[in-house]
Amino acid sequence: MAPRVGHLLETSLYVEDLDRAQAFYQRIFGFEAYLRDSRMCGLGVPGDGVLLLFRRGGSTQPSPTPTGDIPAHDGQGNLHLCFAIPVGELEAWMRHLAAEGVAVESRVTWPRGGVSLYFRDPDGHSLEVATPGQWPSY
Amino acid sequence: MAPRVGHLLETSLYVEDLDRAQAFYQRIFGFEAYLRDSRMCGLGVPGDGVLLLFRRGGSTQPSPTPTGDIPAHDGQGNLHLCFAIPVGELEAWMRHLAAEGVAVESRVTWPRGGVSLYFRDPDGHSLEVATPGQWPSY
Repeated sequence: MAPRVGHLLETSLYVEDLDRAQAFYQRIFGFEAYLRDSRMCGLGVPGDGVLLLFRRGGSTQPSPTPTGDIPAHDGQGNLHLCFAIPVGELEAWMRHLAAEGVAVESRVTWPRGGVSLYFRDPDGHSLEVATPGQWPSY
Repeated sequence: MAPRVGHLLETSLYVEDLDRAQAFYQRIFGFEAYLRDSRMCGLGVPGDGVLLLFRRGGSTQPSPTPTGDIPAHDGQGNLHLCFAIPVGELEAWMRHLAAEGVAVESRVTWPRGGVSLYFRDPDGHSLEVATPGQWPSY
């Protein structure tokens, strides 16, 4: 029997240009910057989450802290993340993405009734915003 | 002004052996399998989240649905995810990982008082479980 988990706290993307990526996530999502250094940026996601943006190749060595090392990690490719949005915000998201010049690559309606919009960040990562009605828990 | 976001809904890992990865996440975290096919597995994370495990190379083409395509994505490398855990479950997590033969690679205590345990999944992805006291929002 596994001990309890509260929620998904952090997820990571690996980006070519940290300034460009941070600007995109702040402009498109309004996420607050909690932490920024030469290596990474930590952005607050509503619901007590954190989106970590790492400069590609900047976390391939352990990162020391006073109490222990943060282990090495790194990623390539075009990863996938999804953010939940309220159903009443879907049309606002369509308008917002259009106004910001972000192309909607696809729109999917799920059997449970949820709607997903897919678009890309400046590194080609595949982002999704989804209204409720996609998963058993959401 | 960005439209509202509710929470981080989905994050993705790309794995060599889908059976092995699914078994690890179910054994270590107790996550419920919502969806499983030859290409991917969707696991429910407490707090209305979903961890998506994709067979590496299995999502490099768009995936059709009756209403629109799920865009292509893929990833390589050892990515990083973190799950929030209650502070009272930290010692239970230490014992659980030891009992399951999962080595704790590092333990970090943060200035705000939170404690993180770092360990690896079978693909070398860098996992963390963290008690509150790490970020402004958590």
